[in-house]
Amino acid sequence: MNSFGQKLRFSTFGESHGTAIGCILDGIPAGLNIDEEFIQKELDRRKPGKSEFETARKEDDKVEILSGIFEGKSTGTPIAMIIYNTNQKSRDYSNIKDVFRPGHADFTYFHKYGIRDYRGGGRSSARETAARVAAGAIAKLMLNELNIEVLSGICEIDGIKSEVFNYEDAKKSVIYALDSNIEQAQKDAILNAKNEHDSVGGVSRVLIKGSPKGLGQPLYYKLDAVLADAMMGINAVKAVEIGDGILSARSLGSQNNDEIRANGFCSNHSGGILGGVSNSDDIIINVYFKPTPSIFKEQQTVTTKNKEVSFSLKGRHDPCVAIRGTVVCEAMAALVICDMLLLNMGSNMNGVTKYYK
Amino acid sequence: MNSFGQKLRFSTFGESHGTAIGCILDGIPAGLNIDEEFIQKELDRRKPGKSEFETARKEDDKVEILSGIFEGKSTGTPIAMIIYNTNQKSRDYSNIKDVFRPGHADFTYFHKYGIRDYRGGGRSSARETAARVAAGAIAKLMLNELNIEVLSGICEIDGIKSEVFNYEDAKKSVIYALDSNIEQAQKDAILNAKNEHDSVGGVSRVLIKGSPKGLGQPLYYKLDAVLADAMMGINAVKAVEIGDGILSARSLGSQNNDEIRANGFCSNHSGGILGGVSNSDDIIINVYFKPTPSIFKEQQTVTTKNKEVSFSLKGRHDPCVAIRGTVVCEAMAALVICDMLLLNMGSNMNGVTKYYK
Amino acid sequence: MNSFGQKLRFSTFGESHGTAIGCILDGIPAGLNIDEEFIQKELDRRKPGKSEFETARKEDDKVEILSGIFEGKSTGTPIAMIIYNTNQKSRDYSNIKDVFRPGHADFTYFHKYGIRDYRGGGRSSARETAARVAAGAIAKLMLNELNIEVLSGICEIDGIKSEVFNYEDAKKSVIYALDSNIEQAQKDAILNAKNEHDSVGGVSRVLIKGSPKGLGQPLYYKLDAVLADAMMGINAVKAVEIGDGILSARSLGSQNNDEIRANGFCSNHSGGILGGVSNSDDIIINVYFKPTPSIFKEQQTVTTKNKEVSFSLKGRHDPCVAIRGTVVCEAMAALVICDMLLLNMGSNMNGVTKYYK
Amino acid sequence: MNSFGQKLRFSTFGESHGTAIGCILDGIPAGLNIDEEFIQKELDRRKPGKSEFETARKEDDKVEILSGIFEGKSTGTPIAMIIYNTNQKSRDYSNIKDVFRPGHADFTYFHKYGIRDYRGGGRSSARETAARVAAGAIAKLMLNELNIEVLSGICEIDGIKSEVFNYEDAKKSVIYALDSNIEQAQKDAILNAKNEHDSVGGVSRVLIKGSPKGLGQPLYYKLDAVLADAMMGINAVKAVEIGDGILSARSLGSQNNDEIRANGFCSNHSGGILGGVSNSDDIIINVYFKPTPSIFKEQQTVTTKNKEVSFSLKGRHDPCVAIRGTVVCEAMAALVICDMLLLNMGSNMNGVTKYYK
Repeated sequence: MNSFGQKLRFSTFGESHGTAIGCILDGIPAGLNIDEEFIQKELDRRKPGKSEFETARKEDDKVEILSGIFEGKSTGTPIAMIIYNTNQKSRDYSNIKDVFRPGHADFTYFHKYGIRDYRGGGRSSARETAARVAAGAIAKLMLNELNIEVLSGICEIDGIKSEVFNYEDAKKSVIYALDSNIEQAQKDAILNAKNEHDSVGGVSRVLIKGSPKGLGQPLYYKLDAVLADAMMGINAVKAVEIGDGILSARSLGSQNNDEIRANGFCSNHSGGILGGVSNSDDIIINVYFKPTPSIFKEQQTVTTKNKEVSFSLKGRHDPCVAIRGTVVCEAMAALVICDMLLLNMGSNMNGVTKYYK
Repeated sequence: MNSFGQKLRFSTFGESHGTAIGCILDGIPAGLNIDEEFIQKELDRRKPGKSEFETARKEDDKVEILSGIFEGKSTGTPIAMIIYNTNQKSRDYSNIKDVFRPGHADFTYFHKYGIRDYRGGGRSSARETAARVAAGAIAKLMLNELNIEVLSGICEIDGIKSEVFNYEDAKKSVIYALDSNIEQAQKDAILNAKNEHDSVGGVSRVLIKGSPKGLGQPLYYKLDAVLADAMMGINAVKAVEIGDGILSARSLGSQNNDEIRANGFCSNHSGGILGGVSNSDDIIINVYFKPTPSIFKEQQTVTTKNKEVSFSLKGRHDPCVAIRGTVVCEAMAALVICDMLLLNMGSNMNGVTKYYK
Repeated sequence: MNSFGQKLRFSTFGESHGTAIGCILDGIPAGLNIDEEFIQKELDRRKPGKSEFETARKEDDKVEILSGIFEGKSTGTPIAMIIYNTNQKSRDYSNIKDVFRPGHADFTYFHKYGIRDYRGGGRSSARETAARVAAGAIAKLMLNELNIEVLSGICEIDGIKSEVFNYEDAKKSVIYALDSNIEQAQKDAILNAKNEHDSVGGVSRVLIKGSPKGLGQPLYYKLDAVLADAMMGINAVKAVEIGDGILSARSLGSQNNDEIRANGFCSNHSGGILGGVSNSDDIIINVYFKPTPSIFKEQQTVTTKNKEVSFSLKGRHDPCVAIRGTVVCEAMAALVICDMLLLNMGSNMNGVTKYYK
Repeated sequence: MNSFGQKLRFSTFGESHGTAIGCILDGIPAGLNIDEEFIQKELDRRKPGKSEFETARKEDDKVEILSGIFEGKSTGTPIAMIIYNTNQKSRDYSNIKDVFRPGHADFTYFHKYGIRDYRGGGRSSARETAARVAAGAIAKLMLNELNIEVLSGICEIDGIKSEVFNYEDAKKSVIYALDSNIEQAQKDAILNAKNEHDSVGGVSRVLIKGSPKGLGQPLYYKLDAVLADAMMGINAVKAVEIGDGILSARSLGSQNNDEIRANGFCSNHSGGILGGVSNSDDIIINVYFKPTPSIFKEQQTVTTKNKEVSFSLKGRHDPCVAIRGTVVCEAMAALVICDMLLLNMGSNMNGVTKYYK
């Protein structure tokens, strides 16, 4: 239950304040060039402490590959990666040890397991997503060989929406903003919340370019369903939308259907997926993040013994979890697409016989 | 890839115009009383032709249980159910045989498989969801023993939104409307579209009452992620939202966090799930359906040989697929919750030793 | 838990005395020609009542395909097959209703599930294997396109061992004997046991010819391990051996290693599998069946209330379950090989990029 | 494909000459006391270099737990363990770099993946089994809480068979011999082979005591089938036998059936498993290991370019891989039993409702 994917499967381990976090990535085809610098760069995009819009906590997130690579290439065996936790201060957790932080997994983990690693978020901390990004980076290297690209950016903060989706601009923005016209307003919203000891929600938009036709295994491993699973499973995500999504539910069929011409689709309301299978158009996903539950304002909660208390969180936290979250969305999308590419290879006898003859 | 669930797993088969559709439901604990009448009633809620808001196509959807039941009780072995297709008119499919209907899986299935059962939607037809409803009905019987209830209704049609969510009213409404005050406006929107040879989108809202704490297997089989997978995989669904979802992404942390008191949560913005695990509050999911792609207006498309054509669909189709879709959402939710109940049983050693001693 | 396989997966349902048995075969590539006559012929090889060496029970085992085939070809969607039970006499089961037959699953199913379909063996009856043979027949059709052949025969009955392994002779033999020189002795052993109201054990030998190099997914879906799983899971199987197997454990390395020359291996002690992966030599598996537990001699047992009783079974039973069992071994082997062929397709980047470019 | 188990699942990584090997063990219930010393002791039982009957290679196999434990107890989250490779001499591999060692996975891995980590056995080295033993040790800690014990020993070397199965004696024997009367003869056989630059095969016998009734998920996750999978997947294993196994195939039903009395079974030919489900009697498995393929005698083989060569292996190797292999068999058995214990928990509604009410 700590694994994701069918043919390309990764399994993660680790808690925010344990020895290390990491993952095993199983199913990467042999012979892929593994650019370790690229993997580290992807991790650097997610790591905290890069700007005032993120938590001030510093973590190096240096990844080490333990297996599965030989002379710079994947060997077809599991690729294990480890990131040691170097910044867990042996600080005092007494204020959260017996208290359920509102909006956190504290309450549910405690009742499920009867025991809880209360240091930071333990397993439920977003720190675990570093392992996803490491795995996703290798997936991106594989996609690169097939000319498929996964991009993303922030399209909404605190209700301030992008009207332009410029993924190149997003790469350069410290908040990964897709629309440079409203970037400042989005930044202001984040800082306002931060100054109020509060946090804000936001929306990440993911674009997958160059996907071939035919990805997605109907009916219970559809591309859109698996993307929804992948995105909803990221910390703080509360909604996932494919293509026009919510707008589609308010449209007429004649508006929402994408007509087809010899050179392709006339529009892309569907977000590149029909019947759960990619149609080779851009795949577009919007991922809705709630505001970071870790705020410094006083809140009402209970202890593990169900005693009512007032509670004020200490520490360093992201004022807007969507920002670093968008990097995680990309990683998950890349992993899903690779899995689907591999799964799709036995779809018809033509492909099978050509492969073996 | 035609199976869903881990510990409770169902696998479906069948095409809209083949001999039969059906499923195998594997993992239902032994000793459950199987009320066959209830299963049929659930199927009747989904079956077409009950009102002018649905396709005029009539299908009886009579389900037959083939295995897994002995003397009225489940035996722990797979429960197979079959529904013969009785209403597939041997009509003329020549107009769609070589044409990709816009908004349909025709295009993607053809390119994935190189072959396509062009009669109706074949495998991609929503007819397959009858098998889900049959499986879901048995899941509901199991939930009933544990006092867990799954309810649903329509909360939005063509942009007309419910302000009240009355699940008892929804049961009585022919369009499963949650808000009787706006039911007529929603009906009008459907009929308007129908009269224009068009279709409309809509939103289903699912409520799960009575869930215990602790359901959901983090980090990659979280309750919300699996619900998102389950819902997004239903035909025509384009977005899934847990609790406040989209609104959360526009909120401050201080607004969105649910504070906790000795007798429970003060609010339920989270939709009953924290860190991917149920907190025993109501679980709430909104499921966004696009308008039925099958419309009778002329559309531009191409043939399987990529020749451009104008195309007008014939036949009988739902003007709003969300309506019957809401019954499918319930079924999928019930199946997910049962799966999670079974998976959760080994979460801690206390439970394990008590079970075996 | 009633499914087998990863990329090609089949799920079975049904009890010996229920309405029907059957399966869903999921993952067969689209475009495979489905020869329904061949499927029926395979079932006929397994069906009972063909000779005095088998149970006198007659079952037609007529299979009907319900889905997944269009115009004679597979469509890539699940292939459901059903075999109605036509020979369940409404006879009196009172003598076994509350009694555990020695050597049977009665005891274990009762304690596991708390309820038991006591008519015949219920789910644990070898009748279920008809569904495996149906699925295996389609796997054989796929293998045929790739020039891979799965053959089998009986190599030992009651300790009488074949010295010759002639798979063509086996096809013609009513006991599927591989060695026509000892066939009569093997037949005599069966009839002797039968006349004594007893039963005998036997060994099936499976040969897979034409397998390419590279099948098997190390380290936990190795070809030999999955074959062992597949074979041990067949009713009455108690041991599985790959290649020289047991003899290997009594050999020296210098005897057991297969040396390699430019045109291939000099010997085949390994049974065609090295490190869990096929080496393109013949794959050889020996499958050891215990004697049918259903004998007519008086035996000591207990009731479901743990009361000691003497018990004499009635009815019609195979005197040697290995004989019809060998057909099931073939089916399972064919299914495993197809699964491995499909899984192997993403093993290296060369294959992946060639497929997608 | 580098993972094993359903509800308790472990995934391993690592090559013999890479940075590290290790595993993630996912599904251990929360609240289990983790005795790290015991885990290390289990690893010490498997580690090489303890006697002249093993390879002279020294490896410390010091295990470090990276996650999943808090204050000495499991938390329900993945337990990652790592063992750094400390004894990979940077020696010269040029003699095996381009040559396929007979009896090894070299040939098959090269053809499957197109690339091979030729240092030692790479991924296919038995070194990986250290990770299994670490995971198995934690499984044993869990079994211990439920009074279930997994034991093993060597029952045959070079055809010299035990007549006595004394598991306490085996613990004390450097070759884990079950029968002290023939231990010396078995030792002699090993040393003889070693002196001849050859190797010998052997058989491990595993005993599981105290298993409850009901373990095993029919029909495709039967206890015996999964044990067969688990054992056959261990390096060098070529046959697996449950209970009387091979002898059963040479028996009459009246000899092989285990009669039942009020206080239990009168005999245990079945090896504790009926219909794929445990009957609470001792579970007995015999695991047949081929002789180590790594011998120092000259052998004929080919290069990766299919050039014929004579080849003499250098290095340090176990003369009998069964000896250290028996520790791995125990680990795999313990993991299978734990998985089955967890899976069995939802078998009937009585258990489910008791758990949740």
